[in-house]
Parts: sequence; C-alpha cells; structure tokens
Amino acid sequence: MKKRILVDMDGVLADIYKSLIRIEYGVSEGIGEIENKLKGVAEREAFPCLRETVSSPGFFRNAPLMEGSVEGLRYLNEKYDVLIVSSATEFPGCLDDKQAWLQEHFPFIGWEQMVFCGKKNSVQGDIMLDDHPKNLSYFNGKRYMFTQPHNALIEDEGFERVNNWKKVVQVL
Amino acid sequence: MKKRILVDMDGVLADIYKSLIRIEYGVSEGIGEIENKLKGVAEREAFPCLRETVSSPGFFRNAPLMEGSVEGLRYLNEKYDVLIVSSATEFPGCLDDKQAWLQEHFPFIGWEQMVFCGKKNSVQGDIMLDDHPKNLSYFNGKRYMFTQPHNALIEDEGFERVNNWKKVVQVL
Repeated sequence: MKKRILVDMDGVLADIYKSLIRIEYGVSEGIGEIENKLKGVAEREAFPCLRETVSSPGFFRNAPLMEGSVEGLRYLNEKYDVLIVSSATEFPGCLDDKQAWLQEHFPFIGWEQMVFCGKKNSVQGDIMLDDHPKNLSYFNGKRYMFTQPHNALIEDEGFERVNNWKKVVQVL
Repeated sequence: MKKRILVDMDGVLADIYKSLIRIEYGVSEGIGEIENKLKGVAEREAFPCLRETVSSPGFFRNAPLMEGSVEGLRYLNEKYDVLIVSSATEFPGCLDDKQAWLQEHFPFIGWEQMVFCGKKNSVQGDIMLDDHPKNLSYFNGKRYMFTQPHNALIEDEGFERVNNWKKVVQVL
C-alpha cells in the first residue's frame, strides 16, 4: 500500500508570497529581493493587511504556481497516496476558488484527494509537506518543511527542510 | 481531554431528503409518506437526477435543518471536541455554500471545526455520527448511524443506530 502524503497548498503549490508582495508592496519586479528582506519575518508582520488581501475576490483563484509544483506533484501522485490539505475555512468564501484552482492546474488530482479544513491536526498520513511549523508540529509522521521566507530562519531537528520542488522530488 | 466526534452534514444536520423530494418529486406535502416508500432504496436510485439537483444553485445554501439538530449539536459541542466533516468536493462549487450554511445555523461552530473533503477515511476521531455506511465502515472509533431512508433496512452490528437528534442526545 502506498504511503499517504499530505501536501499543503499555500506556500507549497501556490506561490502566495508573490501575490502578497505584488498587492501589498505594489511591485511587479524585484519580488525576490523583497522576499530576501522578509526572511524570518512572520507572515502577519510582513503583510499587515494579510486578512483583507487574501479575502479579496480572486486572490486564491488567480494565485501563481510555485515553480516546479506541477511536475513535482505529478511525481508524488504516482509514488504516494497524495492528499492535498489546505487550511481554508478561516477565510470564508475562498473554498470554491481553491478547489477550482487545484482542478485547473493539477487536473490529475481527483476530488477524493482534497481536504479543506480549519486545523490540520485531525488529518492523518505518513508524510507531511508544509511550510508552516504550526501544522508540522502536530503531525506524527515524517515532516518536510517547504522553505518560505517566514520559516527561513527556523531550525527544528524534527523537520527536514526542502528549499524547492526540485529538492522535494530528490528526497521523496 | 474531550473525545473527538466527527459529525456529518447532509442527512444528519441538513434534511437533504426533504429538499430532494421537493425538487425531484415536485411536492411540498406528503414528504413523510414518500420517505417511507424510499426506505431501503439507495439515494441514486431514489433520486435519478441527484448529481444535477445537488449541483443546482443554492441547493446546499438553502437546505432545511434536520429537526432538533441545532439543540443537539450545541449539546455535543459542549461535551465533545466536535468536528463537522462533510464529503463536499465531489460537487465543485458547493463548498462556500456549505460553510455559509453552517455559519448561519450553527454559529457556535468555529472555522477550526470544519472539514470539507472527498473521502472521510483520512480524518481521525473517537466517535463518528453519519448516515452513510460507506463512511462509517472506514472508521476505527465508535460508530453511530443516523437513520435516513437509504440506510433504514441496513443492519450492521458494528454501528449503533440513532433515529433522530433526540436519540443522539440520549445516547451521547
């Protein structure tokens, strides 16, 4: 039986920092430099209007893809029992957009493989791939932390860090 | 620590048969008699247009409440760690409606307590309250089958049957 891997959406499949920086910093270039400056800064500090921004129409529906995520998830989906697990109910009104986004960009992921929830601590699996230590810390299986600016300075021996999807495919 | 109970939406909190009979049988009275005739009939046989009907705009947003469900869930929410778990992703476009319906009728249920998924076999808890044997059969904890016409003739020693919310409050 294949091992079950729980894969996060925001900050793993979707490049949410790119959208947030564009909207809150009003730039379309030099995003990488701003991301560098935001290393170690919590998301809610880096983006003071986070709640309003992610609640704005189309935010999740038009999110850019994380580089390499389509090929990477296709690889995982062949090797593992993949479940996409997204903390979504905190922002009412975004669930349909999130599902439509997944269906558009990852058509090989079926409706049976999607979980939109509040907290992730009730969802079980063997492996978790997530950018948030708050999600990883509840999890009992093998934990991979996908690098994003907010977690860049966190060192936790309980998590294995993966910097990008190329690395995900190498280690998993 | 409180035990975690997974509570289903359709056929437990929402009286989906009432809506389906109104729409597919075109009646507003005598629904109880039709429900009696549908005992033991699978939902997809009882409602040939099930997929189209539940996908129609507002179906889940305007679903009637199961009798006693508000008081019953309030009781459970004080005694247990309640998680509302709904198979929802099979019908894209209904997730936001389902969350809004929950928020309207059960304002004491927080966003942290909601799970909208495909299959329920990845969600863990101590107790499950559901009308579908297909969900209950995967579950490892104590299993309560909420009576609905489609399951009325099913006898399974692994499930404890509860006929209504009054009974739920008595046994739980």
